[in-house]
Formats: sequence, C-alpha cells, structure tokens
Amino acid sequence: MVGVAVLHHPDTQEIELVDVLAALGHPVRLDIAQALASGEERFCGEIMPDVPKSSMTHHWRALRESGVIRQRRAGRKLYLTLRRDDLETRFPGLLDIILNRTAQDRGE
Amino acid sequence: MVGVAVLHHPDTQEIELVDVLAALGHPVRLDIAQALASGEERFCGEIMPDVPKSSMTHHWRALRESGVIRQRRAGRKLYLTLRRDDLETRFPGLLDIILNRTAQDRGE
Repeated sequence: MVGVAVLHHPDTQEIELVDVLAALGHPVRLDIAQALASGEERFCGEIMPDVPKSSMTHHWRALRESGVIRQRRAGRKLYLTLRRDDLETRFPGLLDIILNRTAQDRGE
Repeated sequence: MVGVAVLHHPDTQEIELVDVLAALGHPVRLDIAQALASGEERFCGEIMPDVPKSSMTHHWRALRESGVIRQRRAGRKLYLTLRRDDLETRFPGLLDIILNRTAQDRGE
C-alpha cells in the first residue's frame, strides 16, 4: 500500500543497549520518553506539539527502531507507548534511573 | 601555546544526563568506557589501537565534554580515567547498569 510503511519494532531480545542510549541521548527524545513514563498510550500529536512534524517523524523512528517505544497505527493516527517492560527485561533498572533523573531535573 | 588546547571538563554538577547518554550511545565510546571500568588511568594509545587516531580524537572529546572521562596531558601523551565517582554522584546506579550490561553482552 502506498504511503503506509510497515512499522518495524525489534523483538525484546534484539534491543541493544547502545541503541537505547543513542535514542535517549537527545533532549527531544528524552522528553518524549518522559511524556510516556506513565505507561499510557498517547497520540503522536499530543506530545511536543510545538516541534515541527518533520523532525518528530525522525525522533519517533529513532525511538521505535531502538526499541524504546511502540507505535501503533489506527486510521491516520499513530499511537505511542513506552516499552517499559521490554526495557526492564533487557536492562533492569536503567529506564527508572533515567526517567527519575529527568523528572527531578524538571522539578516534577 | 600553539597546539596545546585546554582540556575542558564540566564540573560534577554540570554533568547532564542527556549528554552522558549521547556520549555512551556509540559502540566505540561504550567500548572505551568499558576499557576504563576498573578505574585505573590508561594512556590513550593503549585503548582501541585499531581505530584511526583522527576518529579517536573525536570520541575522546565527546566523552570528556559530556563528563564521562577525564583527560590529563603529560608531555605528548594523554591519559584517561572514567569519572566514576562524579557520575555516581549525579546519576546513582546508572554507570554500573551500563557497564555490567556491556560486560555481559561480551560474555566477560
């Protein structure tokens, strides 16, 4: 189908530490992970509405291909969740440290 | 002095999580951190001798400016240490998780 690319997600055991660090090593992507920290699914357009859509597409892909988030298409919308359990399975404790620190830095 | 640039290191409290993640989010730099994991100071040329010197200069800088390593010049040589205590102060537990996982992935 034209314009409907398959959304590739690595399996849990394929998630590599270096890729997760690279994905989260960018302020916008760290903000996205933080916005999804509660575990609830959110619509792409709800998160970071002030960042141009073209840059967001790049960030969604970096987060999805590294295994940090899951993207689900429903009609013309994309929904996102953080792969919390998968990341915890692969790197126990890592995501909590990163998200807690990010929350602290913002005084949340 | 020509050719002797000052080596800037951020203070402990200036070390930012996103910069540390970006610095370690590269396979060569993750290898360097792992090679320094024991805490001992090592000479630049000892680590990753097979990677061209010009790329290594870029990696040393990324690690130093993010606060992951300390570089000390002695004559014409540069010595490196991992800023383990400083990173532990800023992000308790983070570095251990990353280094233990990297060691496991290599079957060490």
